[in-house]
Amino acid sequence: MLNPQLNKDGELQHLLTIEGLPKRIVMNILDTAQSFVGISDREVKKVPLMRGKSVFNLFFENSTRTRTTFEIASKRLSADVINLNIQASSTTKGESLLDTIDNLAAMHADMFVVRHAQSGAPYLIAKHLVDTRQPHVHVVNAGDGRHAHPTQGLLDMYTIRHYKKDFTNLTVAIVGDILHSRVARSDIHALTTLGVPEIRAIAPRTLLPTGLDQMGVRVFTDINEGLKGVDVIIMLRLQNERMSGALLPSAQEFFKSYGLTPERLALAKPDAIVMHPGPMNRGVEIDSAVADGAQAVILPQVTFGIAVRMAVMSILAGK
Amino acid sequence: MLNPQLNKDGELQHLLTIEGLPKRIVMNILDTAQSFVGISDREVKKVPLMRGKSVFNLFFENSTRTRTTFEIASKRLSADVINLNIQASSTTKGESLLDTIDNLAAMHADMFVVRHAQSGAPYLIAKHLVDTRQPHVHVVNAGDGRHAHPTQGLLDMYTIRHYKKDFTNLTVAIVGDILHSRVARSDIHALTTLGVPEIRAIAPRTLLPTGLDQMGVRVFTDINEGLKGVDVIIMLRLQNERMSGALLPSAQEFFKSYGLTPERLALAKPDAIVMHPGPMNRGVEIDSAVADGAQAVILPQVTFGIAVRMAVMSILAGK
Amino acid sequence: MLNPQLNKDGELQHLLTIEGLPKRIVMNILDTAQSFVGISDREVKKVPLMRGKSVFNLFFENSTRTRTTFEIASKRLSADVINLNIQASSTTKGESLLDTIDNLAAMHADMFVVRHAQSGAPYLIAKHLVDTRQPHVHVVNAGDGRHAHPTQGLLDMYTIRHYKKDFTNLTVAIVGDILHSRVARSDIHALTTLGVPEIRAIAPRTLLPTGLDQMGVRVFTDINEGLKGVDVIIMLRLQNERMSGALLPSAQEFFKSYGLTPERLALAKPDAIVMHPGPMNRGVEIDSAVADGAQAVILPQVTFGIAVRMAVMSILAGK
Repeated sequence: MLNPQLNKDGELQHLLTIEGLPKRIVMNILDTAQSFVGISDREVKKVPLMRGKSVFNLFFENSTRTRTTFEIASKRLSADVINLNIQASSTTKGESLLDTIDNLAAMHADMFVVRHAQSGAPYLIAKHLVDTRQPHVHVVNAGDGRHAHPTQGLLDMYTIRHYKKDFTNLTVAIVGDILHSRVARSDIHALTTLGVPEIRAIAPRTLLPTGLDQMGVRVFTDINEGLKGVDVIIMLRLQNERMSGALLPSAQEFFKSYGLTPERLALAKPDAIVMHPGPMNRGVEIDSAVADGAQAVILPQVTFGIAVRMAVMSILAGK
Repeated sequence: MLNPQLNKDGELQHLLTIEGLPKRIVMNILDTAQSFVGISDREVKKVPLMRGKSVFNLFFENSTRTRTTFEIASKRLSADVINLNIQASSTTKGESLLDTIDNLAAMHADMFVVRHAQSGAPYLIAKHLVDTRQPHVHVVNAGDGRHAHPTQGLLDMYTIRHYKKDFTNLTVAIVGDILHSRVARSDIHALTTLGVPEIRAIAPRTLLPTGLDQMGVRVFTDINEGLKGVDVIIMLRLQNERMSGALLPSAQEFFKSYGLTPERLALAKPDAIVMHPGPMNRGVEIDSAVADGAQAVILPQVTFGIAVRMAVMSILAGK
Repeated sequence: MLNPQLNKDGELQHLLTIEGLPKRIVMNILDTAQSFVGISDREVKKVPLMRGKSVFNLFFENSTRTRTTFEIASKRLSADVINLNIQASSTTKGESLLDTIDNLAAMHADMFVVRHAQSGAPYLIAKHLVDTRQPHVHVVNAGDGRHAHPTQGLLDMYTIRHYKKDFTNLTVAIVGDILHSRVARSDIHALTTLGVPEIRAIAPRTLLPTGLDQMGVRVFTDINEGLKGVDVIIMLRLQNERMSGALLPSAQEFFKSYGLTPERLALAKPDAIVMHPGPMNRGVEIDSAVADGAQAVILPQVTFGIAVRMAVMSILAGK
């Protein structure tokens, strides 16, 4: 199956996944984002790059936080944004996903920001738009199942570059529920593309996917071992539904074994940064002293996230 | 009861129904829509005709699709749009419909786009605005009960004119659940006004309203008879709640007797067009081979629908 | 605890409550509102005072009506508005209120309009923004628990000033469920600040809070006594949940004893005005003949409410 996210000239047509995305495209997104970081500090935080464009937030899975970041990014680019609550819409009336897409495209949509509980849904939409020759409509994956969350991956890379400048001498640890995390997957692909020499996955065996070795990731089940000497710590959110049940004894038990405490953070390099995609479970995956501490860059991630989304959208719309 | 949709100069004050709407007003809407069709193709799809105007989408009955078309039309006219989820609002706090309307009008609303499960609700609102002398506020009926869906009727006329140029030599068939369809009612009124010489209704007896004869409509219960030699086929959506029960044995049975298949389509004129208001039930009222075939103009209907709604809104706001 | 709503120069930094707000600030808001009243009558009802600013409507408690007034006010100031349905958002994912606030502030929010069922929630947010030195983010309390509803209080003062010019010779009666009313509290503080010499509270004993005497309010349990010679009558909404139960025998009984009828209205001064924050329960706290009568200024309150909210927001954003 051909990768529909690049057009025949090798330019970005849709953003579906970081896997296989050429390094020059990743770097172009990060560089473009940098030019937008300043805009948010201005008195008037708007640029007219997408004036008159219609962006549809298609959230088949509810996520107020992610939807908000795309809505703000769109509005700061002067686009018109339409939020569609798809649970309540035509798909419940028996209309197929692709009929919905064709309908919205016929309204001269310019961009679909898609969040879906099923892996591959944004890919399906993008492929359909390519197959039906609608090159003026672009898809941005805002998180699909356990598969990918590319804008999160890109904002994580922006954050790391901001604090560490160079990727090629870093050790990065990803800690927590890696098995169910689309953020972890996107981060691993991005870190690999950008030349990070050592990527570590730290988790209990029950929360580790297979195949990490083949992706070049070093696996640790002991967090004290895994954090030793790292430059960057990416904490993952533990979903509520994992906290009790087959995979984990309890949230307290998880914190005891894998929670990021000041003591454990001290095992990393003294200038290590701590990241988290949010929303945080304080006292489950991260101690409040760390979350609010000097090494945490969790709120700057949010700020950079707006700039990165503006970059992705404006690059696609400029096509 | 006087028709409140025209002002004393005979100009459009509200759009409530196509029934009784003078032909010159229908033609003016279609002509104005034509000037907007081009705008959606432009780089910047906006015109400033409603800048600073406040449009309220009052959807007492949920319809993401229709709400979206009005929201896009408003934004492309540069209006400010406020979506009100009325189920969750003051009407549940015991406030009457007309108190809600008076309140929103007091906020200097310019336009109400009203969808309501009860026939006549938009009429009630328009009459109240006339009675209380608030001529600066306009009502657009976005579908009321089984009564009318005038913007759908108008976009259907736009589509027919686009493909067939002249109305006065056409045979148009409307197929499906005519009994419960506000689209069918609005289409019949519009086709009559525009001088279509032969309008046919094709449906099982249980889904046919009384009074079609008086409206000048020829009734067919055999689809193979009804489709012979027609220029335009308007398929209607079969509501889920009709598919099993007193009126119909089953969805499969309906498709067998009334579904539009390629074989049946071949009975119409070779250049006949196939329309559907959406969302489609593929395999219930229409075969996918027809829905995706060369004679289907279902997606152009959606595109024209935006232009028609822009036309209606800008004509009203220009008063 | 220091009052966080004024900055060190004594200027308005947040609007949390009218209690303790200096008279010069109240008057400045009313005067600024006056300059906005005319804007809503214009062809283009927008001013660019908040262009590029991001306003977040954080409604932890649902209120379509109040949310709509702030949304309109924001849009007429040319701000970008983002509505957050907080029930469905991160707080349900276990993220704390202040983490949500920090996240939105990191997206370069300029203003939070906060509605919350718990008294003090907007105060908590404002204090956090002061403590974490984020002076560019402003909080407007859109109603918190039984505590305060300052923009309602201010629009009530605007309305009284509009019709009565001078506050210092007025008798104002507040009638109904004073115990549970944040509107009553805000009105009493505002009337006191503006020098109204006589404020009356009229209610059954079960709906009267303690401490009214200390606030300088005269208490009446007999409405016929309380309304004698008043200039202004502020009716309160009776919440549905109070209408049957421990505090009141029934809605009908309440209307019989405390409903504002034409006969009772005749006890007030002949030019007395009747106000109500809406939505009204006709036949419960107010007779329709009064609600729709010549002395009612309930719809002008709504109109002035938009101007007052524009004033508050533009003053805060101008800091």
